Amino acid sequence: MQILKSYRETRAAKYPEPVHIVLVKAPDGKINPMSAAWVMFTSIEPTMLAVSVGFERHTYELLKQQGEFVISIPSELMAVEVEFFGSNSGRDIDKLKQLGSRTQPASIIDGVLLSASSANYECRVTGSLKTGDHMIFAGEVVASHIHEKKLKRLYLVGPGEFCGINSQSE
Amino acid sequence: MQILKSYRETRAAKYPEPVHIVLVKAPDGKINPMSAAWVMFTSIEPTMLAVSVGFERHTYELLKQQGEFVISIPSELMAVEVEFFGSNSGRDIDKLKQLGSRTQPASIIDGVLLSASSANYECRVTGSLKTGDHMIFAGEVVASHIHEKKLKRLYLVGPGEFCGINSQSE
Repeated sequence: MQILKSYRETRAAKYPEPVHIVLVKAPDGKINPMSAAWVMFTSIEPTMLAVSVGFERHTYELLKQQGEFVISIPSELMAVEVEFFGSNSGRDIDKLKQLGSRTQPASIIDGVLLSASSANYECRVTGSLKTGDHMIFAGEVVASHIHEKKLKRLYLVGPGEFCGINSQSE
Repeated sequence: MQILKSYRETRAAKYPEPVHIVLVKAPDGKINPMSAAWVMFTSIEPTMLAVSVGFERHTYELLKQQGEFVISIPSELMAVEVEFFGSNSGRDIDKLKQLGSRTQPASIIDGVLLSASSANYECRVTGSLKTGDHMIFAGEVVASHIHEKKLKRLYLVGPGEFCGINSQSE
C-alpha cells in the first residue's frame, strides 16, 4: 500500500544508489573530477551515457565549453575520493592533486582516467537538455576501460555514507 | 590500472544496477508497465526524473502522446514483475492484468501506482532528448508515494538475475 508523502520523505527509497565521478578538462589543462549520482546509460548502439549536472557547478561551466568527458565508476576503495570530489569545487582547488589520485591518460579524448576505479568511459558530448536546476549532457562512449582486477563498485547508502556491493553473478 | 576493452567486456562493472518500472496510460485506457534500468533523478528544485526509452518500445509510442508517467521503484519481492514487464510488449498483452499486479490510482496524474513497490513517483513530461537509439524523457515529479513498510528495493545483479539490497543507514 502506497502512502502519499513529500518527495523528501520518500527519498530514502532510492538507496543504495550507485555513484560516479565525472572528469572534465579545464581550459588551463587542469582536470576537474566531480562526484555524481545522476548518471545513466542511454543508448545501446552507439553506447551512450547521460549525466545530470547542476547549473552552479564548475563542471557545468567546463562541459558547456568542452565536448568531452570521462565517466568513472569508483571502486569500493574510493569513498574518500567520492566524498571529497563531491563536496569541494575545482574553482578553488586542484582536487586530483590534493588527494594524490592516480590517473592515466585517456586513449581517445583529451582527458584522464582514474586508475583505481572499477571502470572508466570516455565520452563525446552529442546533446544536452535543460531539466529544472540541472542540465543533462549526453555523450557517446568512444572508449571503455576496466580495472585489471574485478573490483566492487561504490554505492551511497545514505547521506555521506558509502559501501561496496558485490555483484552476485558476474 | 585500467585496461582498454570493448564496452561489452566492461559492462559487468555496472552491477548491481537499480531497476525501475515506467507506467504509461494508453489511449484505450490500459496501463502499460515497462522495466527500465536507465532512470535518474535530474533536478532538485523542482524534483525531476529522467528515463531513457528505446525507439522500438511500446512505451516510447505512448510517451510521445501522453504527457504523464509513473516511475515505480520495485521492491525486492517484485523480480517476477520486473522480468515479465521487461520481456513482454504491451502491444500484445495487458501486462498488469496478466500478472494480477496490485495497483492503486495515482493522486494527481491520470495513471496508477504499483502497490507493492518501495516507492512511486508521478511525473509530467517537460522535455525530451534524442540519444542514439533511445529517447530521454524528463518529467517533473508532481506526487511522491512510499510503501507503508520500509521495503528493500530491487537490483539487477546480472542478465536476468535480481536481488534486494538493504540500505544500511536509512
